[in-house]
Amino acid sequence: MSSALDGLIAALPEGTVVTDPDIVASYRQDRAADPDAGTALAVVRPRCTEDVQTVVRWAAGHGIAVIPRGAGTGLSGGATAQDGSVVLSTERMRDITVDTATRTAVVQPGLLNAEVKQVVAEHGLWYPPDPSSYEICTIGGNIATNAGGLCCVKYGVTTDYVLGLQVVLADGTAVRLGGPRLKDVAGLSLTKLFVGSEGTLGVITEVTLRLLPPQHTPCTVVATFASVESAADAVVTITGKIRPSMLEFMDAAAINAVEDKLKMGLDRTAAAMMVAASDDRGPAGADDAEFMARVFTEAGATEVFSTSDPAEGEAFVVARRYAIPAVEAKGSLLLEDVGVPLPALSHLVAGIEKIAAHHDLLISVIAHAGDGNTHPLIVFDPADADMARRAEVAFGEIMDLAVSLGGTITGEHGVGRLKKPWLAGYLGPEAMELNRRIKAALDPAGILNPGTGL
Amino acid sequence: MSSALDGLIAALPEGTVVTDPDIVASYRQDRAADPDAGTALAVVRPRCTEDVQTVVRWAAGHGIAVIPRGAGTGLSGGATAQDGSVVLSTERMRDITVDTATRTAVVQPGLLNAEVKQVVAEHGLWYPPDPSSYEICTIGGNIATNAGGLCCVKYGVTTDYVLGLQVVLADGTAVRLGGPRLKDVAGLSLTKLFVGSEGTLGVITEVTLRLLPPQHTPCTVVATFASVESAADAVVTITGKIRPSMLEFMDAAAINAVEDKLKMGLDRTAAAMMVAASDDRGPAGADDAEFMARVFTEAGATEVFSTSDPAEGEAFVVARRYAIPAVEAKGSLLLEDVGVPLPALSHLVAGIEKIAAHHDLLISVIAHAGDGNTHPLIVFDPADADMARRAEVAFGEIMDLAVSLGGTITGEHGVGRLKKPWLAGYLGPEAMELNRRIKAALDPAGILNPGTGL
Repeated sequence: MSSALDGLIAALPEGTVVTDPDIVASYRQDRAADPDAGTALAVVRPRCTEDVQTVVRWAAGHGIAVIPRGAGTGLSGGATAQDGSVVLSTERMRDITVDTATRTAVVQPGLLNAEVKQVVAEHGLWYPPDPSSYEICTIGGNIATNAGGLCCVKYGVTTDYVLGLQVVLADGTAVRLGGPRLKDVAGLSLTKLFVGSEGTLGVITEVTLRLLPPQHTPCTVVATFASVESAADAVVTITGKIRPSMLEFMDAAAINAVEDKLKMGLDRTAAAMMVAASDDRGPAGADDAEFMARVFTEAGATEVFSTSDPAEGEAFVVARRYAIPAVEAKGSLLLEDVGVPLPALSHLVAGIEKIAAHHDLLISVIAHAGDGNTHPLIVFDPADADMARRAEVAFGEIMDLAVSLGGTITGEHGVGRLKKPWLAGYLGPEAMELNRRIKAALDPAGILNPGTGL
Repeated sequence: MSSALDGLIAALPEGTVVTDPDIVASYRQDRAADPDAGTALAVVRPRCTEDVQTVVRWAAGHGIAVIPRGAGTGLSGGATAQDGSVVLSTERMRDITVDTATRTAVVQPGLLNAEVKQVVAEHGLWYPPDPSSYEICTIGGNIATNAGGLCCVKYGVTTDYVLGLQVVLADGTAVRLGGPRLKDVAGLSLTKLFVGSEGTLGVITEVTLRLLPPQHTPCTVVATFASVESAADAVVTITGKIRPSMLEFMDAAAINAVEDKLKMGLDRTAAAMMVAASDDRGPAGADDAEFMARVFTEAGATEVFSTSDPAEGEAFVVARRYAIPAVEAKGSLLLEDVGVPLPALSHLVAGIEKIAAHHDLLISVIAHAGDGNTHPLIVFDPADADMARRAEVAFGEIMDLAVSLGGTITGEHGVGRLKKPWLAGYLGPEAMELNRRIKAALDPAGILNPGTGL
């Protein structure tokens, strides 16, 4: 195999192929920390589409698997390495060009989401999608997983902002799809097909993003509740009437974990806390805030706090974003990502409580409640084998529960390797077969990110 | 063949298969009026998914082409019949169920867009996409073409509102994709793949639509210009700063054709008219209107008129919607649908003027200007063979011009049969091959809507 690798090393600019065992080992896992991760032959760090083509052509010729990787912040094991593969890291593909006239940015996949936001903001524009990990995740990874975030409840998910792609296919062909045209229906919707394909259909080497004028300063409403049902009822009432720009949920465990760390004076006795916002301009935003405060009160909120002060509002958003690290301080996390239709939200949270009690586990639930997308955080001690086993069982039971409530096994993180055992059951045999047919048509030898859901 | 058809007639409820030659003949063409349309063996009008499965299984077994058809309002010949095919009309699939808690509607494909809007409005909700033909086109046809409309500049196109589909595949298998979940990334984005596939990958038998809270009453601004460039410049300035809910363009020929009919007192000497609106709530909408009026004035508008009166505003929207029938009164129309990146809009309009002059034709341009999506209306007399030929040449030249400006051959109408000769050139060989691979994977025998772009 080393002679094959020598060919790749020779075909690429110096420094592109890394074989140092310590460095290669550091690319074995993403944040899913899959214990079954393999070790790649090499990590390849191309700078351009042509280099990616060289890598994929070489891999196709040698029957070697290619594992595309952004920043490795994925939570489903979509970038877990396998023995004998090459990891294709986009970390050095970081160019961006902004065109204010077309309101688009052409971006290489390795730029961080936060960097994209910042560069376009310097041009007076806004890239909305905001996964909680936006400061450390790449735009390429966002596109591979069709990442969501907090503002999706009003502004949609990553796919809604992808106008065009350049993709290197499994045989090394580079293809351009879409471009800086706001409407384009010529041919099949292939740009949309590649968004969310988790590196299984091609390697994305360039993206054309749709940008918006800047967001207005939001008005924020925070409310605590004695029951999850009350909070969930309020969500359905609010989203039926207005379009909030954020509608986030934290359960008691999350509230307490955040309070342990941030000491903000959050109500430790509350069963649920909602952090909501409206970025409608002028008095409309304040009207929305007032409306949401009223709905929260009528739903039985124990405390409601509204603010139009951006810093004050942001403090609560920070608290919500901080929930994951705060809960993580209590042990290792299995981070779930199930979604349900809105009316099933309280049933889901209640069911998760039962699962936690049954397995004697701490499971904290945070949620992009306005989208019905929850992140149950299953806390466990990896040194305690029985607890780790129980955590894994609970992980599966939560997905089964979500599906039984008409929900999905993953709302915004992807299937990766971690959720693969549940995909066929969720999709059903017909949709699974359709997925397989598309995969086989585009990657017949199966060299692109094998081992994931497809 | 009649014995094969007897089998189909026997397998379906009485009255589902129509063979009356006059009726079958009335399903030969859609609004593209393709002179090369064939005649189907029969028109089949199923009421449910199971009946569609019966039709497609039968067709697959006999190698007979299936032409899915909504209301036949398509402008690209996507529903043109061919000899020996069956036309599968969704006209009797008209059920709708609205769920206010999930803000979704489950709809059969044969309901008209306007009927969907009306039923969901009765539940206090809004389905945004609004093709100009919304009163006569079906939701199924909208999904097959990923239809656009006037409000897309702010609210996006059809695909942005499709959460789930039931589709009958080329072998008669029925598959469910997505559902009433606002975020779902489990498996490939197959729902999105079927939207805009023009009946070539499957027959859509049920749709789950995402709905929004009602739109706010818009403020409207109308402006006339002595040059197209001024109007186009204003479009770029406006969309870079705010999000109007409408930003429509009419050229001199369209203004005059509408004025001939409606006698509204439009300025017949103007080179361009813009009809713009903002539906931001409260003073923000009026602020936006004031901003747009200022931009129009600074860009050199000869006259600017603003109104917050809904009836007054709607009169101008009606004028804009009326442009197509008004121009059609001057002769038969070849209705184009090219789109360009926003800054190329005035170059496109100028180029179309040259094409019109060169071929001695009247070509009137209306446009969803905020999306860069134009509808050049090529007027000709079908009885004048030379003029009809010149119109066809101009039709192709306009697409070539759009592509040379970085644009697309179709923004919202689809490729159908009419634009098929231009598809490969626009997409390029790699993307065309990718389209073909997907088509072959899903419909290897090519029985679904053959003769269209794919």
